[in-house]
Amino acid sequence: MRSLGGLSQSFVCRFTRKTFNSRPSSKSPYFRIPALWISKTNIQTRGNARSAPYPNRTHTCGELTPAHAGTHVTLTGWLLPERKVSKFMSFFPIKDSSGITQLVIRKGDTDDHLAALSDIPVESTIAIEGQVRVRPEQSRRDEGTGQIEVQVDKFTLLNPAQCMPFIPSDNQTLVNEDLRARFRYLDLRRTALSDNIRKRSRVARIIRDTLHDDGFLEVETPLLLKSTPEGAREFLVPTRVGRSTARQDGKDIPLFYALPQSPQQPKQLLICSGAVDKYFQIAKCFRDEDGRKDRQPEFTQIDLEMAFVSWGADKSYSRSDTWRVGGHEVRAVIERLVGRIWQQVEGITLPSSFRVITYNEAMTRYGSDKPDTRFALEVIQDITPSLPSRTRSSLENLGEIIEAIILRSSENNQFLRASDECNSQEESDVTQSVITDSNMLNWLCDNRSISLKLSHDEHVLLNKTLGVSSGDTLWLSRRRKVPEGGSTALGRLRIRISELAHARGDYVPPTAPHFLWVTEFPLFTRADPDKEFLAQGRWSSTHHPFTAPMWQDIEAMYAGRTDQVRGQHYDLVLNGVEIGGGSVRVHDACMQEYIFSQVLQLSDSEKASFNHLLHALKCGAPPHGGIALGFDRLMAILCKTPTIRDVIAFPKTGAGTDLLFKSPAAVNKDALYQYGIQPTHG
Amino acid sequence: MRSLGGLSQSFVCRFTRKTFNSRPSSKSPYFRIPALWISKTNIQTRGNARSAPYPNRTHTCGELTPAHAGTHVTLTGWLLPERKVSKFMSFFPIKDSSGITQLVIRKGDTDDHLAALSDIPVESTIAIEGQVRVRPEQSRRDEGTGQIEVQVDKFTLLNPAQCMPFIPSDNQTLVNEDLRARFRYLDLRRTALSDNIRKRSRVARIIRDTLHDDGFLEVETPLLLKSTPEGAREFLVPTRVGRSTARQDGKDIPLFYALPQSPQQPKQLLICSGAVDKYFQIAKCFRDEDGRKDRQPEFTQIDLEMAFVSWGADKSYSRSDTWRVGGHEVRAVIERLVGRIWQQVEGITLPSSFRVITYNEAMTRYGSDKPDTRFALEVIQDITPSLPSRTRSSLENLGEIIEAIILRSSENNQFLRASDECNSQEESDVTQSVITDSNMLNWLCDNRSISLKLSHDEHVLLNKTLGVSSGDTLWLSRRRKVPEGGSTALGRLRIRISELAHARGDYVPPTAPHFLWVTEFPLFTRADPDKEFLAQGRWSSTHHPFTAPMWQDIEAMYAGRTDQVRGQHYDLVLNGVEIGGGSVRVHDACMQEYIFSQVLQLSDSEKASFNHLLHALKCGAPPHGGIALGFDRLMAILCKTPTIRDVIAFPKTGAGTDLLFKSPAAVNKDALYQYGIQPTHG
Repeated sequence: MRSLGGLSQSFVCRFTRKTFNSRPSSKSPYFRIPALWISKTNIQTRGNARSAPYPNRTHTCGELTPAHAGTHVTLTGWLLPERKVSKFMSFFPIKDSSGITQLVIRKGDTDDHLAALSDIPVESTIAIEGQVRVRPEQSRRDEGTGQIEVQVDKFTLLNPAQCMPFIPSDNQTLVNEDLRARFRYLDLRRTALSDNIRKRSRVARIIRDTLHDDGFLEVETPLLLKSTPEGAREFLVPTRVGRSTARQDGKDIPLFYALPQSPQQPKQLLICSGAVDKYFQIAKCFRDEDGRKDRQPEFTQIDLEMAFVSWGADKSYSRSDTWRVGGHEVRAVIERLVGRIWQQVEGITLPSSFRVITYNEAMTRYGSDKPDTRFALEVIQDITPSLPSRTRSSLENLGEIIEAIILRSSENNQFLRASDECNSQEESDVTQSVITDSNMLNWLCDNRSISLKLSHDEHVLLNKTLGVSSGDTLWLSRRRKVPEGGSTALGRLRIRISELAHARGDYVPPTAPHFLWVTEFPLFTRADPDKEFLAQGRWSSTHHPFTAPMWQDIEAMYAGRTDQVRGQHYDLVLNGVEIGGGSVRVHDACMQEYIFSQVLQLSDSEKASFNHLLHALKCGAPPHGGIALGFDRLMAILCKTPTIRDVIAFPKTGAGTDLLFKSPAAVNKDALYQYGIQPTHG
Repeated sequence: MRSLGGLSQSFVCRFTRKTFNSRPSSKSPYFRIPALWISKTNIQTRGNARSAPYPNRTHTCGELTPAHAGTHVTLTGWLLPERKVSKFMSFFPIKDSSGITQLVIRKGDTDDHLAALSDIPVESTIAIEGQVRVRPEQSRRDEGTGQIEVQVDKFTLLNPAQCMPFIPSDNQTLVNEDLRARFRYLDLRRTALSDNIRKRSRVARIIRDTLHDDGFLEVETPLLLKSTPEGAREFLVPTRVGRSTARQDGKDIPLFYALPQSPQQPKQLLICSGAVDKYFQIAKCFRDEDGRKDRQPEFTQIDLEMAFVSWGADKSYSRSDTWRVGGHEVRAVIERLVGRIWQQVEGITLPSSFRVITYNEAMTRYGSDKPDTRFALEVIQDITPSLPSRTRSSLENLGEIIEAIILRSSENNQFLRASDECNSQEESDVTQSVITDSNMLNWLCDNRSISLKLSHDEHVLLNKTLGVSSGDTLWLSRRRKVPEGGSTALGRLRIRISELAHARGDYVPPTAPHFLWVTEFPLFTRADPDKEFLAQGRWSSTHHPFTAPMWQDIEAMYAGRTDQVRGQHYDLVLNGVEIGGGSVRVHDACMQEYIFSQVLQLSDSEKASFNHLLHALKCGAPPHGGIALGFDRLMAILCKTPTIRDVIAFPKTGAGTDLLFKSPAAVNKDALYQYGIQPTHG
């Protein structure tokens, strides 16, 4: 530290009044502070903060150890509440983003201006000078700077905390969420949140290091992109650019950019260019949709794309591995990346490759395309094969199956009590049968939503085959055999029971993360209500129209058997949460054109926004594939918080508003006028 | 590489027709290709591209060396034009983003399907299998893979280039800029551009590594930020969020986010929170302004901010160092960062600290607040002190000075001829005097724009003091003594002469970069026409209203001597280009309030958008400061290109339009209606 010599002495504030409290009064949530602080310095300041030189810090509040004993140090940080030991001695913790150091003030020993430290409101920033000492043995702590303390000689008030609506260092009373959102800069001062911010930066670094080391280039793609006629869910950005040349019927028409929902098209074009063999970006994406549970209008993706992805799993995978789509290079990168994150951040060694299951298996066994495989709740059984052949074939003719979750009373099942509590009303397509001695032979027949008839013998045989006995609970569902969409009724029930069991404390999820790849999704769907507003009765792409079919199904696609085409798509699922998805893309312009025109039946205007991609495919585009992981969601899991708002420095509320910056907001008409727009209700 | 066994053979395309050209025909800029390729595979594809498995690549096109001789390899990449050696032998270069490998085709030797390679259009993607050989001695090159070649056994066409509007590998004929912008994905295939993209990724990595190693955290700040009533230059983003609750006179009013021009407020709030001691972000910023020379509506900043910045230079700086503002920690980080970039990317060792000059010195000696100190063109002289005392005091009374650039004929000056060519008409406030025997004693008196009267003796004395003689050229300017704005008339002339001399070839700029800090700018200005539309006659902040005054000038500020207040601002200048700027911020809420209300005279509504910042300052905000470097500009300098468009993957034109994605574009009225807006001319 460079000494400021004689000057520094005069920079030390001295206080002669003690008229303010260090805690909010009961009447007002705001601290009061005298308007003028009296200081020895001859620098005129009207504010209370020090705007003139002060001693440079020599150390942070988190780094001092017994090795520093005897050293004279200068620390800067936020003052935490005093702990009075005696009339003459107090402890003050001082905190910065690196940690907390205990300050010791002996009020008799030295210049008694140190007593004034008691009058400084908590959460003010100060600089202190003093000497590091090893703590008396009984006061030593192993954590952080717990071995030492600093005996203070002088202090300088840098900025008093005058208007604290709440005290972030007060862990006992967490004030309501709206107040914390409004004063996010104070909420962030809480260690719980600042730890998340630090971890996020660290994980971003691991991601970049891993991908750079793997030969990826990070490339920024445009955020001011193209607005498309049918572009619901994209934010529009009015601009003055080019307005003078865009005229219709002799009138200026307003022009717009749009914010991308993902860098999908730019990254594919980049790979088509050949400039970049492996691309990545930690990319901001935007989605203008009505507030949904824990979504943000802007969010962050770990986005990557690779040229020349190929088929055939790597030798390193076991023979039983069921990755039958292309893009195993993408899989390998992600498994390495995720493995590195869990290793370095959590100290957990993940398996070198993750389990792969097909969409069909996921839907059949777990009733979900993002199954939570952590818990032992019985997977779903198709009981159709156990039914009498007459019943079976009538179901087959209808293309239907009967499936069940069986909770056996003989096993001390941690989900049984939750199951009992579960209200089957919530899920209309499932019914609960608790097997008793009296309904042993008609629990299926009497089930009106299943509506099957079984003879006495058939029921006896069924009970035997399924191994059910009195006291067991069966959840039953009749559904179409070919799974559709993201979950089945029993799949949703399975999750509800597990959540209930978790809430009851019967079930505690294991700490080890369960990663899973889900592949072989149907390439096209008619079962996604989110897509219906654009599809309007036509087929939609399950993921996006650039996903390639499995090569085995190309013939089916060209033959019009649209429902039979599986895509080369892969979702990464962690603990039942989809944290990423990707695919091998179509690189054949003719095939892409066929998908647009013949399968999705896009109109010419709908197709127009893909023209540049179609042309790029015609210019020697390489086979390519990629993936995007949701960075916010990944961080929420790593930070063990249920909401992504806890891992974003300045998030918006669930409703999309920003209580800190007060956005969105109205703008005046003149500002709109220059873009050629005006309010509808003027 | 995992062998595909018997399969791979059948995946090799064989061609039986040779009806297409490998060059565009003169009639059409597009290649023609037969609609159906005949292949041995039994997979039905309607396109010409291979959508089924193909051999995995074993190496990239840039990595083979003589150490691989004899190895069987599979390469994938873009086919470049054939060079026929004989009837039976051809060379084909194959290129990917890592480099180029020479393929050798012996048409007689092997299966004659290899001859079909000649029929594949250049720029198609192929996979080849073959054996690495060391080239004959006379053909070896030291660069890249110049020591080896690959004798091809088989090839697979992955995707034919069918529609090339131009051939990017053709370095001879660079097609016009509009065409290249429209087909940016092909322009990026040019090595010149892809090298820039690669370098940009590399530099971003160096930046992040350096800052992480220095203890910085990377934090993402919101892009959907607050629209301000007076927010010209910010892009608005209409949103449906909260519309139902925002009503005025019983009507829905449209609501908007705004895209940030920089993360200034979020980053200050982040530092005020204490969560982060050192923040950085490679941040996207947005500016909605009429197209200016080489600006982009979205651009990238290396943005950083540090808590507890202090005064007093580090010991490591020399005593003559004139950094008299705070924030030397920021300076040290940037010097280390820039030094690391130049060291690793250019192999140039920069000085450990950069020269510091004050705004006043920069304006006086170079006539610019971002002086180009590379060239030896005489700096500007204030000749007022050489004038007779009578003249001097009359100038002083007016607050004016006479300054000159003197080009001496006695020195073999590389700028003299450029100066002769320079037309003084372009700069109305400068006049040129070429000294001859006949005007030796009246060159100043006769200068009408200077309009001074000197006696014969005074003129003789002046000539002697200045050392001018016949044949010298003087450029003269009379200006107000206190410099204002970014440049003086002579400063602009100095640059024009240097550019002319450069264009003439008289002057070649040195390769070593000239870095410079410019400090002590006036904190407030009335001389910035760009700010006048908001200031409307009031004072403006020279940089932004959060910049702190130098502590020596605080008293002057509170006393209303606004023009005398210097700010704690620092600009980083490289070769006459401002590549960054930053400052120590106001952390005293009272001072910030005084600047808003008393100096800038903001209205209440103008101040409202700063309320959260003012409150954050009151909650124990630490002293802090930061900087932002223009990443695009920095990369353009590193890539030795005059335009930032060459270092952005998908840039917009100078006019802000995107010829590739065809944006901005019109949107239909229904899309606008949901935001509560409509076209003005509907």
